[in-house]
Formats: sequence, C-alpha cells, structure tokens
Amino acid sequence: MNTSKNIKKIIIKKPLKLDCGKTIDNYPLAYETYGKLNKEKNNAILVFHALSGDQFVAGINPVTNKNGWWSYAVGPDKAIDTNKFFVICANVIGGCLGSYGPSSIDAKTNKIVGTNFPVITINDMINAQYNLLEFFEIDKLYSVLGGSMGGMQVLQFVANFPNKTKTAIPIACTASHSAQNIALNELGRQAIMADKNWNNGNYLNTKSSPKNGLAVARMAAHITYLSKKSLEDKFGRKLQERDGLKFSFDADFQIESYLRYQGNAFVDRFDANTYLYITRAMDYFDLAKQYNGNLSNAFKNSKTKFFVISFTSDWLYPTLENKEIVIALNAAGADVGFIEINSDKGHDSFLLDVPDFLSSVKNFLEANY
Amino acid sequence: MNTSKNIKKIIIKKPLKLDCGKTIDNYPLAYETYGKLNKEKNNAILVFHALSGDQFVAGINPVTNKNGWWSYAVGPDKAIDTNKFFVICANVIGGCLGSYGPSSIDAKTNKIVGTNFPVITINDMINAQYNLLEFFEIDKLYSVLGGSMGGMQVLQFVANFPNKTKTAIPIACTASHSAQNIALNELGRQAIMADKNWNNGNYLNTKSSPKNGLAVARMAAHITYLSKKSLEDKFGRKLQERDGLKFSFDADFQIESYLRYQGNAFVDRFDANTYLYITRAMDYFDLAKQYNGNLSNAFKNSKTKFFVISFTSDWLYPTLENKEIVIALNAAGADVGFIEINSDKGHDSFLLDVPDFLSSVKNFLEANY
Repeated sequence: MNTSKNIKKIIIKKPLKLDCGKTIDNYPLAYETYGKLNKEKNNAILVFHALSGDQFVAGINPVTNKNGWWSYAVGPDKAIDTNKFFVICANVIGGCLGSYGPSSIDAKTNKIVGTNFPVITINDMINAQYNLLEFFEIDKLYSVLGGSMGGMQVLQFVANFPNKTKTAIPIACTASHSAQNIALNELGRQAIMADKNWNNGNYLNTKSSPKNGLAVARMAAHITYLSKKSLEDKFGRKLQERDGLKFSFDADFQIESYLRYQGNAFVDRFDANTYLYITRAMDYFDLAKQYNGNLSNAFKNSKTKFFVISFTSDWLYPTLENKEIVIALNAAGADVGFIEINSDKGHDSFLLDVPDFLSSVKNFLEANY
Repeated sequence: MNTSKNIKKIIIKKPLKLDCGKTIDNYPLAYETYGKLNKEKNNAILVFHALSGDQFVAGINPVTNKNGWWSYAVGPDKAIDTNKFFVICANVIGGCLGSYGPSSIDAKTNKIVGTNFPVITINDMINAQYNLLEFFEIDKLYSVLGGSMGGMQVLQFVANFPNKTKTAIPIACTASHSAQNIALNELGRQAIMADKNWNNGNYLNTKSSPKNGLAVARMAAHITYLSKKSLEDKFGRKLQERDGLKFSFDADFQIESYLRYQGNAFVDRFDANTYLYITRAMDYFDLAKQYNGNLSNAFKNSKTKFFVISFTSDWLYPTLENKEIVIALNAAGADVGFIEINSDKGHDSFLLDVPDFLSSVKNFLEANY
C-alpha cells in the first residue's frame, strides 16, 4: 500500500515454510526502532502490533501523520522507556505497511499479489519476525509485548523460542478465538467481500478498492473495541450539531458520525485484503491445538518471566480468557504475574491513557531489568 | 415485498399525522389473527413484532413456509393460549409484509415508494396499529405484549392509550436505545447503504436489491442476538465438514457457515429499505424524552397491570435497562411485576423454547384473566 522512503525494510532471504505448506523467501519485512541498542545488546524489546496496527509504535507515523498507535506507552520516560530500552516493531507479514503482504507487487508479474498471497498464521508472522534478532545481532530479547493480536504473538513467540526473551507481557488477548470472536471477524470479511469493488481481491489500486466494505468492517470492529459504558459516557444519545432529529438517514447521533469517521479514516491507510488475511490468522490461532490440546505444553520449556494483563471492561478478550493463559503458565511451572486493570474503556484500554496499566507495565519492565 | 393473497389487510382511511410532520392516509395495515374473539370482546391480545418479524406469529408463515416467529409462545395450550385468547398481530408500518412501507407501490407513480417513504417512529407504528381496535370493535384489549422492538411498542401503546389494555408485558427491551444499540444499528444501515445496488433506495425489484449489504447487516444483528456462551456451546471452534483448516476464505468454521446462511436466508424474505426504516425508528425511540425527560410520566395515567421480563444473558437490552422501566413504573404508582429469566441464550431467548419464560407468561396471562 505504501512504499514511502520512510519505511525501513530488511529482505529476508532465508526460506520460511508457512503453516499452509507453501514456502516464501526473499520477502521484505518492514520495521521501525526507538531508543538505542546498548553494547551488551540486552535492552531490546520486540513489540507486536494488533490487527489495525503497524510498525510505527511511537512518534509521528509518516503515512498517517498522526501519533504512533502506542504513543501513550512508548517513548522517553514512558512505560516502555526508550531512554533505557531499544524498541523494535515490525509490520506483520500479510500487513500493508511495507512487509510482504497482499498489497505487495509481485516481481515476476509486476501486479499486486492480492489473494495470491498465501493464508498465513500467527505462527508464520512470528517466524518471519524472528529474523530481526539475527539482523540486529541480538541473542536474547529483554522483553516481548503486545496487546490483542500483539498478545497472541507474544504467546506464540515464547512457545516457538522458549529462551529468546527474558520477559513477556501478553495484554488483553486470548490463546484462541471464541466462536463470538470468529463471528465478528467473519462479519468484517463478509462486509469486504460483499463490496463489488473487492472483485475477488483483484482490485488494481486504492482508488478502485472496496472502501465501502472495509469501512463497514472497521465500524463493526470498532464497536467491539469499546465498552458499552464508554460509548454511553462519551456519546449517549447526543445529537450531531443539530437541535432535533432530522427524520433522515444522515448521522443524527454523534455516535453515528464518529463511526462513519472511523470507517472512512481507516480506508485511507489500510488495505482490504490485509484485513481479510490478518483476521483469518487471528481466527486460526489456537495455541493449545498446536501442543496436542494442552496450552501449558506451549510454555513448558520456557524460562521467560510472564506478566499477563487484562481489563475489566474488555468484552472482546475478557479477563476469563486471559486468566486461562495464567492457569496454563502456572501449570507449566512458569514464572507468571497477572493483573486485571480496572478500566471502563473496553478492549481499547491498552492503547489509551490508562495510568494503572501504564505504570504496571513500567514497573514490571524496570523491576526485572 | 409480497402481495400474496394470504396476507389480510385493512385500509386505514383516517389520516395519521406522523412525528416527522407528514400525514398519511388510505394506507394498508396487514395483520393476522389466531384464536377467536369472544362475545364480550375481552380476550383480545395485541402482539407486537420485532425488527425482523412480521404478523405471522404462529402456524406456518405463508411467505417463508416456516413456523411463525413466536410459535413456541403462541398456539393452543401454549403460553399465549389461542384456545382462550384472540391474538392479533400487525405488520408495522415501514414493514415489508403488506403494511405501508418503502416496498409499497405508490398508486400515483406506480413505482416502489423506496426512500420517499417518511422516516417513522415507534409512536407512529402504535398510532397506526391502534386502528385495529376500531376494526375489530374492541373497546379494551386484554393484553399487549412483545419482545425487543415489540416491547418498545408495548411501552408506547400504554403511554398513548393508558386505559386501552388490562395488562402489558414488555419483554427484553428498553425505553431508549443506548449509544451501543445505535452504533450496532448504524453498522447495519451502513452495510446496506454501502452496497452499490442500494442506489439511494431506488432499487427496482428484489433481483437488483442490495442483498449483499442486507446479508451483512443481518449477520451483524444476529451476533448481537446470541450470547457469547450460546455461540461457544453451539459452535465453539468446530469446523464445517472438514478435517482441518483449508487456508482459504471459505467457511472453515461452523459459525461462519451459520452466519452466511442466516444472512442469505434473510434477504429472501426482507426488504433492505425496511431494515433502514425500522432500525431508525428503534434508534429514535426515547420514551422519557416524549414526557419531559421523566419516564414515569409516560405511565402516570395508566391502570394497566405490567409484567416486565428480562433475560440474564441478553447483552443487547440487559436486565439493567429493563429494570429502569420497572423503576419508572413503580414511581408512577403502577401495578408492576418483574422477572429476570435465567437463560444463556442471549437476547433471542424470548423467541426460543425457554420453559421458565414461557410458563411465566402463561401464568401471568391466565392469573389476571
């Protein structure tokens, strides 16, 4: 979607056998870094982004010209203090901000890859990102962390590479999608595929892309990121710059304007096929299944110290599902801490200015360093 | 949408001034009845349908050839016993099963009314249906009842006509839509309006209608009708007639097939513009606002005996919102009973075989008759 010079990339030559059976090689992985890697190379933190995220964690995102998605958490003196730590974040494969994905150009045909891109998994994403350790010549990370799909990647990273990070912080996530999670993602996919401009994934450029469908998918997802209470407190039944109802299908209520804005803003920066591929990877994620149905087996060889975080009002990945991860870690004899943060901001809490959350992350990272 | 001979209609000549300011007259109201009106005409029950419902409460729906939407509740010896009671249900105005709505043919232009249909309210729906009492020469109903939007109509009926029903049973409803409710309905509307076939509401026939958009809207709504637990119990991560993941965008999971089926089945029987109009009416509904911000004022002149019912796992109209109705009724000095039914089937509980719910309705109706 974007080949701006502001996007740093490594080309990964080593072949990667994907879960679908195909093998990819010579593919780009886009990344960004914050802070400095110290001489001992023991202060590196790998952050994993969520469905709609990218590698631009902090500072100004050069594509959107807005703050990075985790600006509240990452920066000098912040929870993930870039005066102390070297933060790396990569755009996942399947993404649309420089890493190999459906919006990449196929070198052989000079066409957009589209749905010729293979269906990838969280495991594939992690195996691709592991190459960053070699690139930066880091033997062991200090921490891996991320929220939502980022949290799934944290779990997969430790499962795949049990002794390649000292600590790990999975936030507001799950070890496998529930039927409701799959249903909500399928809704988004159907909204995109219902758009005639989707054209089986063969849209030529962003002008002819399935913008309407992608906007609807984003609206649907956005509703799930917020709690009922946060929507009520912020919007309630407030009207949008009008005194009374207009008896039309324009946006009468502020919540309608807000959702339309969120949908439209998203299509300017995101690729519809990437939305399909990444939601599919999330739905396919089932870490216990990878270990003969026993989630604790995923962690049994790990010496990583875990800190699991959930939010009271997160109904997408409720505390109960985060606790199942804690139970599995305990069963594996792992070193694990857990906190449920009191927040009425829903799943989005991990992206927002939630002081108890931010100080918990900061304290854990600094106490164990 | 359907002008089958199986649809009974009255033509309402009396002008109805709508909340939007327009006046309609000589419009059709389609209805169905079950059981017999007794000589005293004191056994009539008016049932109100929900968003996707219609007048075919029980028996076989002549359009879908499936059971009526409230077959579990209405019939001989059932909760609403048609051996005892005369049950009437009308298709709401704005609907698509015979009553005046956007799929009606405009007599003057011979074209489908489409978005020339006025934006209507729950109040307008009730004022139109009140004509049924005159038609059947019923001075006072024995009861009014309905779930979801049907429950909103129950509340509006008693507010408008405080002594025209002996009893009233609002089920799984609210006195006004929350921001989350509006958001979810707006999502459905945007899905429909995003479909190029919608064409600003001017689609000529069902073949060129915005089927894809309507199917997505239905999928979104359907997810909200079920609880997380009921989805998990019924579907979990079960695969659809396959041994393993197919690494494609076909329906791998049973929940995906189910939602696609629900979406596609809906478009065969429902009009997309009706979906827009009825969700709008639900979002506009705010009974307290009609009474200077005090919900109890809506009921202060009523001698109607109320029975309010909610379901534990209903996250669309949770118990809390049903209790607000009870509180307002108590503040108005009304005679009111309340029960929260233990059910893990979500908002849809009122349509399903939930024995505690069905026996509660039956007991209330028969004890007060």
